[in-house]
Amino acid sequence: MSVSEEQVAPTLARYAEQTRRAIDKVFMDGEPADYLYDLIRDYVGREGKGLRPGLLLATAEACGASIRSALPAAASLELLHTAFLIHDDIEDHSRLRRGQPTLHELHGAALAINAGDALANLSARPLMSSAFPRYRTREVLAELQLAVRQATEGQALELGWRRHAVVDLAAVDYLELVGRKTCWYTTMAPLRIGALLGRWRPEAAALDRLGFLAGCAFQIADDLLDLQPAGQAGKEPRSDITEGKRTLMLIHLLGTVTGTERRWVVTYLSRPEEDRPATDQQRLLAMMQAAGSLAYAGAFAAALADAAQQELERAFAEVPPSAALDFLRALVGHLVSRTS
Amino acid sequence: MSVSEEQVAPTLARYAEQTRRAIDKVFMDGEPADYLYDLIRDYVGREGKGLRPGLLLATAEACGASIRSALPAAASLELLHTAFLIHDDIEDHSRLRRGQPTLHELHGAALAINAGDALANLSARPLMSSAFPRYRTREVLAELQLAVRQATEGQALELGWRRHAVVDLAAVDYLELVGRKTCWYTTMAPLRIGALLGRWRPEAAALDRLGFLAGCAFQIADDLLDLQPAGQAGKEPRSDITEGKRTLMLIHLLGTVTGTERRWVVTYLSRPEEDRPATDQQRLLAMMQAAGSLAYAGAFAAALADAAQQELERAFAEVPPSAALDFLRALVGHLVSRTS
Repeated sequence: MSVSEEQVAPTLARYAEQTRRAIDKVFMDGEPADYLYDLIRDYVGREGKGLRPGLLLATAEACGASIRSALPAAASLELLHTAFLIHDDIEDHSRLRRGQPTLHELHGAALAINAGDALANLSARPLMSSAFPRYRTREVLAELQLAVRQATEGQALELGWRRHAVVDLAAVDYLELVGRKTCWYTTMAPLRIGALLGRWRPEAAALDRLGFLAGCAFQIADDLLDLQPAGQAGKEPRSDITEGKRTLMLIHLLGTVTGTERRWVVTYLSRPEEDRPATDQQRLLAMMQAAGSLAYAGAFAAALADAAQQELERAFAEVPPSAALDFLRALVGHLVSRTS
Repeated sequence: MSVSEEQVAPTLARYAEQTRRAIDKVFMDGEPADYLYDLIRDYVGREGKGLRPGLLLATAEACGASIRSALPAAASLELLHTAFLIHDDIEDHSRLRRGQPTLHELHGAALAINAGDALANLSARPLMSSAFPRYRTREVLAELQLAVRQATEGQALELGWRRHAVVDLAAVDYLELVGRKTCWYTTMAPLRIGALLGRWRPEAAALDRLGFLAGCAFQIADDLLDLQPAGQAGKEPRSDITEGKRTLMLIHLLGTVTGTERRWVVTYLSRPEEDRPATDQQRLLAMMQAAGSLAYAGAFAAALADAAQQELERAFAEVPPSAALDFLRALVGHLVSRTS
């Protein structure tokens, strides 16, 4: 366990456990179990890192809200995120999620698409329940809808780039993509929703910048983990390379290599996924290492994380000190330094 | 044009036009256009029959609400329905929708799944807009969420039956399926939402029965149209037979034929879709005709439509007469007698 994990793991686990209990309270069984609710419970039960609800709950606490009052929002966000994962896995042809076969591998794409739709719909339940004040429901729903809008726009960009073999990309395109696809529902929405539930209001523009910077740093760190021999926890290692995902490392490589080498990369990316043999994948990774793409991305993420810490101090300058605020500081550092 | 079409077509067209304008008002452009918003606008722009918004608006009018006040709900329902169609078409491997290739045929399943998610999310916009009273937003959202829950449960049943080659089905199973998959968002939700927006309240239980009966009659009529040589407007004719869809006609056939004939049908249904040649499809249809399955389903739908008319009179017994109420009567008849 790294230093950052020691600092954040126990609190993150506590928030995750509280969110899980909030989900269990409202979450619904129903029929057909074998074609729908068993599928949903399978994915909801696969434990993730709990970053999103943890960030939301810590922000709410730091802003003076009780955890109890923020739990319905955290539960809805976590369920919505899980619904996304089901569809993302289909769109990306992913085979493993959280150490088990993806839902479409187990039940086919049709039932998995439908289960994702059902779960996205159910995700509003905690917010619509009597435990959550009515006047907040609309505000939080609007935030979640904004996050989904951004996430679907980012996902469309990423899928479009892959489908049309787009290679003419710079770091700024990557940040635009990740700003929409990852940041909104991973960091920006949790921060914004947490803040609107509290008494003390962090500075809104700085909070959004914090979310953007921390979310981008998180995504780059995530993509770097994918390239490690062990990969990310519970996923197939190096699936980004198989899928031709436009990571910062790939964009750096495309901007660095020239001549035959660049043409080889472009050809690799224009081939269908099933025509990308393992030897070619290893070659692409070796080229990234030789071009310094991994080191470049690591330094990029660290710089973003530093900037995020500064925005955090700006955003919360007028908010009283608290254990929750200290946890937020540690969590932002952890997003980049985590090892799984 | 049949008598029923003459009665309902002009009013239905007027409601559809008003809904379209309400959608245009709130509907959003954005980026990426080529990978997302062009796709959404393509499907939203393919004109459907407008049954759902028409039913909602007529019910609201009959209950004393202004059309204007009900339009945001009608617009949201229509957008949500269109989002469903995108995913339904993927799940059913449909190739044509409203006379044009389905979205996944044009852009691949990944971008189409994402576009459906984006549109389902956007569908709440009219309800969240300032044109709609805040205290209504929550009520109508709850109705839509209930409808989506039922629709995804029904869809799961249908997909599960096909995936696991389930053939041991009776008419009651069909009604349970259609009651969830079709009735909720096609007839029950429009009736319930229309009623809650008005001053006069129809009798709730009779209104739900009306929705169930009319929705089932509509679906059977729809499935019968699919078997006509011309098929349904804008779809591939007889795609239900290709897909092995558990229609009332197929269930009747399975309950009627015996011995080798029944074994042949079961074998047909257990084969993958691509292994169902056109000659076998014609043979299945001929068997249905010989077994009286089409006549049986037609009589079944007519009986449901008669019962629906009775429930309509019960539901609206205390509601003053109006042109909108007369239109509702004609529309319920039209659901079964329509020819396209």
